[in-house]
Amino acid sequence: MPSPELLPGSRGYIIPIGGAEDKLHDRRILQRFVDVSGGEAGRIAIIPTASELDSTGPRYRKLFLRLGCASAEVLDYRERADCDNAEWLAFLQGATGIFITGGNQLRLSTILGGTQVASVMRKRNAAGVPIAGTSAGAAFVPEHMIAYGASGATPHAGAVSMAPGLGLTNRVVVDQHFRQRDRLGRLLTALAYNPFVIGLGLDEDTAAFIAPGGKIEIVGAGAITVVDVSDLDFSGMAAAKEGAPVPLIGVRVHVLTDGCSFDLDSRRAVAPPQRRLEED
Amino acid sequence: MPSPELLPGSRGYIIPIGGAEDKLHDRRILQRFVDVSGGEAGRIAIIPTASELDSTGPRYRKLFLRLGCASAEVLDYRERADCDNAEWLAFLQGATGIFITGGNQLRLSTILGGTQVASVMRKRNAAGVPIAGTSAGAAFVPEHMIAYGASGATPHAGAVSMAPGLGLTNRVVVDQHFRQRDRLGRLLTALAYNPFVIGLGLDEDTAAFIAPGGKIEIVGAGAITVVDVSDLDFSGMAAAKEGAPVPLIGVRVHVLTDGCSFDLDSRRAVAPPQRRLEED
Repeated sequence: MPSPELLPGSRGYIIPIGGAEDKLHDRRILQRFVDVSGGEAGRIAIIPTASELDSTGPRYRKLFLRLGCASAEVLDYRERADCDNAEWLAFLQGATGIFITGGNQLRLSTILGGTQVASVMRKRNAAGVPIAGTSAGAAFVPEHMIAYGASGATPHAGAVSMAPGLGLTNRVVVDQHFRQRDRLGRLLTALAYNPFVIGLGLDEDTAAFIAPGGKIEIVGAGAITVVDVSDLDFSGMAAAKEGAPVPLIGVRVHVLTDGCSFDLDSRRAVAPPQRRLEED
Repeated sequence: MPSPELLPGSRGYIIPIGGAEDKLHDRRILQRFVDVSGGEAGRIAIIPTASELDSTGPRYRKLFLRLGCASAEVLDYRERADCDNAEWLAFLQGATGIFITGGNQLRLSTILGGTQVASVMRKRNAAGVPIAGTSAGAAFVPEHMIAYGASGATPHAGAVSMAPGLGLTNRVVVDQHFRQRDRLGRLLTALAYNPFVIGLGLDEDTAAFIAPGGKIEIVGAGAITVVDVSDLDFSGMAAAKEGAPVPLIGVRVHVLTDGCSFDLDSRRAVAPPQRRLEED
């Protein structure tokens, strides 16, 4: 039974999370994920494939059950052959929310890419089921995934290696642990290849809830740096030599915090309603 | 005798350098500094105050002499009392170029601030003498100096500590070692206080030659990240709590490399003339 939030005909939320989301205190991001994934009636599938720790999946299972969903199962895909497991596939087909853990995004793309599991995930999201990914899981959800890259604030030719991701949307590229690991340069490099895409630099404990209509709602303790190069006046990308810095003129950047939103269609950011401040 | 480039009535170049400028190979930044400082007729004053190494000043002296200037002297101001040294002051008064080394910018502001030396430097620059500063020296040259701050890509309330600098211009704030030390967040924080100012994030071995008319010419191997918040749609700075991320909507960023320029009046960036590429 789909949750009341799963509107017929509209796709589900796509929810990249910057990693290290709060698991001990108010757990706002994980709670909101459970809420949009059917709440008390929710059945949540956990994909721990990115991680090589046995504890990752079971830890999220406990968390989601504590946050009130009806059931949560760890679908422990460790190699491509696991993707044929009929029991897991049945749970995935009936899931009302899918959560992809952190680890290494290249494990996700190499183990799940081209399998029934990836195909079912795409179809379920198209049918209205929310899919969240944290850290490596966040990088994996879009069509174009940052596989790895250099750190540093300046875009450099060759600073980033891209690979095909899960493919839930081709409108954003995600980079995670953004504030913590100095990744503006590699995100700008990724965008410079094709300015159609919007860059989302996610701080830790911060999520982008991308709603079915294309509105991105920011939830969490950090910020999301939205990088929009669609109005670029000049890009030196095509002519740049490997390792050379890439000139880019006319980048638009928004630093968005909890309560802010960004619309992918109009490419406009909206601030949260202002609280009235006490004045001295 | 002022060099032919010292036009009457116009101030001299202001030249912040991102640190670690090339001293071994083509030395483009230092050579250009010597060229605009009178070339073969140049008399260059070196201020090593930021550094606690005895070798810093003499090293630059050798370099400048090798690059062809007529004379170069180290004015070794180590404490405020040194600022009364009449011989050094006489050399400074007659210098056709002034170079401030790296180290700790708070040594520059605390030792030189409010002295005759700072006053003479400002007057000489106003009269047409170029003043360059590398690393800490670059941070020191503007009116508003970044004293120190946190690293990270996201602006945070309290992420930066500002102090009054030498005061050659109030139109830019400079951050150095930009690509190498992850300083976008602290530069954005500095700008969020008052969006009038343009932020210059200087990579190592990269210089902003700020010409008398306000045109900035980029020289060097890295990039300058120009951050323009003058068209900001929203800033959460006034309401942000200490340590909290600051929402900023509508930041404009340009990544500029060697040959690019930026005009402080029109706030427009210009790409270098395109080379014709060989096609396959």
